[in-house]
Amino acid sequence: MAAIDETSRRRGPYRKTEARRRDIIAAAQQVFASTGYRAGSLRDIGTVAGIDPSSILHHFPTKEALLEAVLEDKEKHDFEVLPALDDVDPHLVPRAMLELAERNSRVPHMIALYAILSAESTTAGHPSADYFRQRSERTRRDFRLLFQRMADAGLLADGVDVDYAATSTFAIWDGIQIHWLIEPDAVSVPETLRRHLRLITRVHNP
Amino acid sequence: MAAIDETSRRRGPYRKTEARRRDIIAAAQQVFASTGYRAGSLRDIGTVAGIDPSSILHHFPTKEALLEAVLEDKEKHDFEVLPALDDVDPHLVPRAMLELAERNSRVPHMIALYAILSAESTTAGHPSADYFRQRSERTRRDFRLLFQRMADAGLLADGVDVDYAATSTFAIWDGIQIHWLIEPDAVSVPETLRRHLRLITRVHNP
Repeated sequence: MAAIDETSRRRGPYRKTEARRRDIIAAAQQVFASTGYRAGSLRDIGTVAGIDPSSILHHFPTKEALLEAVLEDKEKHDFEVLPALDDVDPHLVPRAMLELAERNSRVPHMIALYAILSAESTTAGHPSADYFRQRSERTRRDFRLLFQRMADAGLLADGVDVDYAATSTFAIWDGIQIHWLIEPDAVSVPETLRRHLRLITRVHNP
Repeated sequence: MAAIDETSRRRGPYRKTEARRRDIIAAAQQVFASTGYRAGSLRDIGTVAGIDPSSILHHFPTKEALLEAVLEDKEKHDFEVLPALDDVDPHLVPRAMLELAERNSRVPHMIALYAILSAESTTAGHPSADYFRQRSERTRRDFRLLFQRMADAGLLADGVDVDYAATSTFAIWDGIQIHWLIEPDAVSVPETLRRHLRLITRVHNP
């Protein structure tokens, strides 16, 4: 019995700490998505999480460390999706991309978080500049690999090479997401992407 | 002579006030482009303009009024360009768009200003939400008019309608500008746009 009590004494606070970290990360996601990183204060994050701002610093030593945790969390979310893309039959690459776009449309706050942080990251001395540059390189590389598989299967349209397919798909996707955040009734992310993929590939009903 | 002195007494301070307003707007453009609107403080703007932050408020009663002046100023810059697009031979629409993209590439700080403010404007209660929604509607409408002229001349590619041409061109343009700010050596805005316009139109060497 003593051993069991000992264990729960150790587990209890650990579970609490983890739960508190999760709450803070969720609150920071919400605040950064609605004001950006620079203007998002620990005070606002504390208010959303329902804890004292000073106790945030027990869990994350700096606001930068908290930003890193927010981005790592999104990373995990992305990570669940990429293996499926990686493994896909070349005929199904467009469909897999559209499914990802449709899934993302159901989490508009994550799209907003990424839109605002990636734009903000281009400004001088921003702590997530490296993160967004690496994400950009990685996404373009992953898209190249996927479109290379399509090219090998003769599935790219005339006049479209792997590099253009990757660069244009990435650009139109990020661009239409911002336009959708600005005018949600005027544009559809999956529909715009679907028509783009129809034009650059030989898969006509993705 | 008295009359002339009187005039210069009135003109001198007026010219000075105008020059000071211009300096403040230029400083605010720089600060907002590098930190966004919410995080950009009057203190920072004062430092860049070389004037006391409190005297900014003599020229612009609120930070919001200053943001409006910054956006109106960019508007004038855009305004010089649009009549040329409006007036253009349908065969030359793609070329006119590419010339605009090339001109814009020479003012990356304006692209950064727009990228960060438009992303930030999608967040709750942002003072330029209306501005960016209206700009988005106007740009899509102007693009539709231009592509309609191309459609009337039989210049859109098979399977491309006016609405898709406008929506996709606007999206790929804004998207590739952000990617260019993040990875300036990896992508070219005019080249990506050129290839997109080649695919959606029958003008093969824009």
